[in-house]
Amino acid sequence: SYGADGRSSGRIYADYSIFKGKAALSASPVLPTFSKTGSGYTKVDRRGTIMLTFRPAIGERKYDSEKKQLFALSVTEIGSFISLGPGDSCEFFHDPSMQSRDAGQVRKSLSVKPHTDGYFISLSVTNNILKTNERVTVPVTTAEFAVMRAAFSYALPHIMGWAHSTNPPTENVG
Amino acid sequence: SYGADGRSSGRIYADYSIFKGKAALSASPVLPTFSKTGSGYTKVDRRGTIMLTFRPAIGERKYDSEKKQLFALSVTEIGSFISLGPGDSCEFFHDPSMQSRDAGQVRKSLSVKPHTDGYFISLSVTNNILKTNERVTVPVTTAEFAVMRAAFSYALPHIMGWAHSTNPPTENVG
Amino acid sequence: SYGADGRSSGRIYADYSIFKGKAALSASPVLPTFSKTGSGYTKVDRRGTIMLTFRPAIGERKYDSEKKQLFALSVTEIGSFISLGPGDSCEFFHDPSMQSRDAGQVRKSLSVKPHTDGYFISLSVTNNILKTNERVTVPVTTAEFAVMRAAFSYALPHIMGWAHSTNPPTENVG
Amino acid sequence: SYGADGRSSGRIYADYSIFKGKAALSASPVLPTFSKTGSGYTKVDRRGTIMLTFRPAIGERKYDSEKKQLFALSVTEIGSFISLGPGDSCEFFHDPSMQSRDAGQVRKSLSVKPHTDGYFISLSVTNNILKTNERVTVPVTTAEFAVMRAAFSYALPHIMGWAHSTNPPTENVG
Repeated sequence: SYGADGRSSGRIYADYSIFKGKAALSASPVLPTFSKTGSGYTKVDRRGTIMLTFRPAIGERKYDSEKKQLFALSVTEIGSFISLGPGDSCEFFHDPSMQSRDAGQVRKSLSVKPHTDGYFISLSVTNNILKTNERVTVPVTTAEFAVMRAAFSYALPHIMGWAHSTNPPTENVG
Repeated sequence: SYGADGRSSGRIYADYSIFKGKAALSASPVLPTFSKTGSGYTKVDRRGTIMLTFRPAIGERKYDSEKKQLFALSVTEIGSFISLGPGDSCEFFHDPSMQSRDAGQVRKSLSVKPHTDGYFISLSVTNNILKTNERVTVPVTTAEFAVMRAAFSYALPHIMGWAHSTNPPTENVG
Repeated sequence: SYGADGRSSGRIYADYSIFKGKAALSASPVLPTFSKTGSGYTKVDRRGTIMLTFRPAIGERKYDSEKKQLFALSVTEIGSFISLGPGDSCEFFHDPSMQSRDAGQVRKSLSVKPHTDGYFISLSVTNNILKTNERVTVPVTTAEFAVMRAAFSYALPHIMGWAHSTNPPTENVG
Repeated sequence: SYGADGRSSGRIYADYSIFKGKAALSASPVLPTFSKTGSGYTKVDRRGTIMLTFRPAIGERKYDSEKKQLFALSVTEIGSFISLGPGDSCEFFHDPSMQSRDAGQVRKSLSVKPHTDGYFISLSVTNNILKTNERVTVPVTTAEFAVMRAAFSYALPHIMGWAHSTNPPTENVG
């Protein structure tokens, strides 16, 4: 599988990061991958995601990348996120080992809950193998959430592959 | 008629599919076609659509493509769809044989009706020739509907040809 | 003045047309024009518009292009149009001969007024020279207005030149 | 640092300007800059902004560019701006000499406050070195604010670099 244009995708990296007292939260789009079908057209192979990265604070504006925790929002989870009204909340559950031997051993849950000015975004990771249970929460202001909503809405058709199917890549014959 | 850039369009295929107990619903954009006018400019020949495909379930996460039913949402129907407020409903009627000998023999109706968390999307097909009457309903959650609304809104100016007329295709002189 | 890419713009034409009993209303984006400054960069010369065309009916689904009336919505008028809430109305006045000898002789007014399902869009043209006073009204459904709102919102940054300034045209060196 | 495509960016200039009795307000997007990482991919170096320029009136539709005051809205401030509801207000504070010897000497504050039809946008600049205190206010109508909201929302993913990371620039091999 490869990028829609036959080249490796995502070579430009841009995230949106929020640095708070206890942790930092970064979001960045991950594009879909594509594959050629027998009939000769190109099809989405694996849909993209919005990758959320949480890093705990280890000093003033210093965050520990070694202890980062990831959560990849699916297309439908992004739909839930961007349609949150004031006061609404949502929660998503992921099993990173789904369909493998370790299925059910690690459980990640991401929750978005309203507070006075914005939302708390929390990630819980329960690992039955390592017997660990971690939880990190980042308070997101209304303005920061508005940026996330706008950016996630923009990214959604790209992540779904609709931006690729409605704007076929230019073929240049030099 | 041909694509806006003089090449066959839609070579990258991306849909949004919802798999439910009784049926699956897939949506994908169909781009407009263009033709050259005598005056030398390019004009929309046939507007695009959002193609909805319903496939009945024939087992766990297995769906019958042979029994699929199609419904192509027009530009104005998409306008109706994306402006649905909470609790609103809408219904569209199509005659696939319109302006042919069999006009009036087949009648398709698509309805979108609210439920507690989202909408029911139903397609009814009444075929007077085959004496059949089929109906398939897919429950769509609020999050899934938000994805459809965002994706359909994104696709709308592409389907209308406005994305093409505001972003003329690059001419490459090699 | 020329297109942002140094070529004549708008060579692909796409409109959105509504055909009603007494008249047809078409809308299509008109891109801005650009000019080179002494400092070597390219600047918007004249902002674009959304061109509205009204044609009176002269038979069943036949409309008289010879009697068409035009009204070019400016950027700020488009802002007013797309932010209309349910029940809101707006009215714009244009003098097509502004700053010429005939200033004040022709007065065009476009009004958008709510009705049960959508809006009435009316154009009045009072011509003191020809002693004429024409008025044409097209009823627009909520779904059709949603298409116009989505399409006008999409077109707005293109009409303002922001789509060009944030996405510089590719230079191809073959 | 350089543009995402390795060329100097922003060569096409487009603003949105509002000319009022006491001052003019112009807004235009400033794209992010990018740099190559050791790992070979391109990363946002400095996020873009929306640059607001205020120029005091010095005659009928004449504005003094020599006395212009600038305020660069950050990504999160844009988020705050575009999510303002009717009757909401917001205020941002900038120190243009932050992290330099003169930190704290100049203080800029931009406020957006509702009025009957739209918002007042005011910029205050207090300069302790020059012992000056300037304030300029531009009344913005609901329609003009709608244009700013739409244009700022459009520009946001470009300013964040997400438009670049989801649409990699075309490489042309001639």
